[in-house]
Amino acid sequence: MAVYTHIDAEMLADFLKGYDIGSPLAFKGIAEGISNSNYFLQTDVARYILTLYEMRANTHDLPYFLNVMHHLADAGLPCPLPVEDKKGIALQKLAGKDACIISFLDGVSVSHPTADQCASVGKVLAEMHVAAENFGDTRANDLSLSGWRDMADSVHDRADSIMPGLAKLIDDEIAYLQAHWPQNLPTGLIHADLFPDNVLFTGDKLTGIIDFYFACNDIFAFDIATCINAWCFDDEHIFQTSHAKRLTEMYDMYRPLTAAEVNALPILCRGAALRFLLTRIYDWLNPVSDALVSVKDPIEYVKKLQFHQQVKDAADYVI
Amino acid sequence: MAVYTHIDAEMLADFLKGYDIGSPLAFKGIAEGISNSNYFLQTDVARYILTLYEMRANTHDLPYFLNVMHHLADAGLPCPLPVEDKKGIALQKLAGKDACIISFLDGVSVSHPTADQCASVGKVLAEMHVAAENFGDTRANDLSLSGWRDMADSVHDRADSIMPGLAKLIDDEIAYLQAHWPQNLPTGLIHADLFPDNVLFTGDKLTGIIDFYFACNDIFAFDIATCINAWCFDDEHIFQTSHAKRLTEMYDMYRPLTAAEVNALPILCRGAALRFLLTRIYDWLNPVSDALVSVKDPIEYVKKLQFHQQVKDAADYVI
Repeated sequence: MAVYTHIDAEMLADFLKGYDIGSPLAFKGIAEGISNSNYFLQTDVARYILTLYEMRANTHDLPYFLNVMHHLADAGLPCPLPVEDKKGIALQKLAGKDACIISFLDGVSVSHPTADQCASVGKVLAEMHVAAENFGDTRANDLSLSGWRDMADSVHDRADSIMPGLAKLIDDEIAYLQAHWPQNLPTGLIHADLFPDNVLFTGDKLTGIIDFYFACNDIFAFDIATCINAWCFDDEHIFQTSHAKRLTEMYDMYRPLTAAEVNALPILCRGAALRFLLTRIYDWLNPVSDALVSVKDPIEYVKKLQFHQQVKDAADYVI
Repeated sequence: MAVYTHIDAEMLADFLKGYDIGSPLAFKGIAEGISNSNYFLQTDVARYILTLYEMRANTHDLPYFLNVMHHLADAGLPCPLPVEDKKGIALQKLAGKDACIISFLDGVSVSHPTADQCASVGKVLAEMHVAAENFGDTRANDLSLSGWRDMADSVHDRADSIMPGLAKLIDDEIAYLQAHWPQNLPTGLIHADLFPDNVLFTGDKLTGIIDFYFACNDIFAFDIATCINAWCFDDEHIFQTSHAKRLTEMYDMYRPLTAAEVNALPILCRGAALRFLLTRIYDWLNPVSDALVSVKDPIEYVKKLQFHQQVKDAADYVI
């Protein structure tokens, strides 16, 4: 959670003069986002989110992220839509920061997903990948296979302070993944961070997917693997087979999986677990003092990785 | 700002079963309140704030604070109204904390008040004091004259680390205030913390007064003195005569000030400046590491106190 940059009523009123979205009725800093400041904005027209991109964000990639949202919202996905000002410009400057107003999506994030909710995630993920097929922009995934060695090196010397043997576990896993990473699987635009925090429901109805700031091009099925890690384990990090099978079954109904994609799921799940293990270790060892972010325990992803390591074949993940 | 206690969608849904306020459409932790966690809640019926009272709050005073809001809202003041559950109970337990849902008030807080906005504050403050006259509950002000000596003692040894001579300035001021504090002025329920943060406007229309968690019984005109300190200085801490005069003029139209109250304004303003100087010094010397609160500079209130010290008579504050 974070509100790094304070926007007062006067700054807001001045900023909104450039838009046709009404007058502000309410404006509250909200506890969302790690590298951005976010405000809830209610006008007499509609509800919005105002985001200020702080220095940690990849500002040169912002046009890409906004294009992703625009493309997916146009395709009917429940994504926030970047709001353009009177001149047709969505990406602005406010208080010296890059800033954008996006539409507000109703719904709340669940902490203990049900199998039905996992099925809804599978469906929307497939719809997103289908909608992505005619999206022209590209962005490399710097948090995939090619980036893990550098990420591991940056935490290597201190990883064992978290858990004895952790540095070796990571080294061995990277070696394994480099030797066995699947080739020639279908790729395209992926969300890359579709955790429960980034999905909104009203009841069991999925009403929103948000936070496209890790979106990139990569293997579609790697996005499924991230979701399996994020949605299909319980509070004790025990794998929930039925959750995963509902997720992949529903995905397959909206974007049929190839045999190669299904067969790659165990190793892709290992890769996704390693990716979040590495960033969690980094965040654990390098806490940001001015961000009231509750740093997440890396051990959760050690356990998930170890689960995937002992999986014999994809039958654990699909019906 | 703070969200100390995380409430997830499942906890919220369960909690709302006790209420007749609809189903949640949106639920966001908001960056408001220092000792509380606050959530914005939009249901299909209305907008609300859910507050969880964390350990720093005086939990035994919560029924008093909720009664204050209830009384003032019933009297037509633009205050949040505590929302009762199906059994008629407003003060609840959630996640082990005292909790309450209150109505959401539209409006935004201003950072650079205009003289017109100061006039609106004078009016609402007077209306609040009038409405308070038939309020039966009482609560002592532990941040007034009787409390300042102890507060000063708790920071005495380290005050000069902020500004050389600060400890002596405080000692001298307390001695002066103890010798000259006005007696027999009209008293009753005061807000005691009516800073710009706690007042909402849409444009120049005052639409809300919030945060009654310092409300107490004290001299009515001490509440005016707090507002003069909070609303009538610019960013360089220069006194804005016209702001103060508009504030007191409008107050006087809705609750006529006695000559004794007017004459006491200079010393009451010194007292109010000292009260905020003392709490700011305390917060400066004792930062709360888990609260992403921007600690406010105590020197601002040294300057304000020094301004009031050189005021000759109440003519600086009133027309």
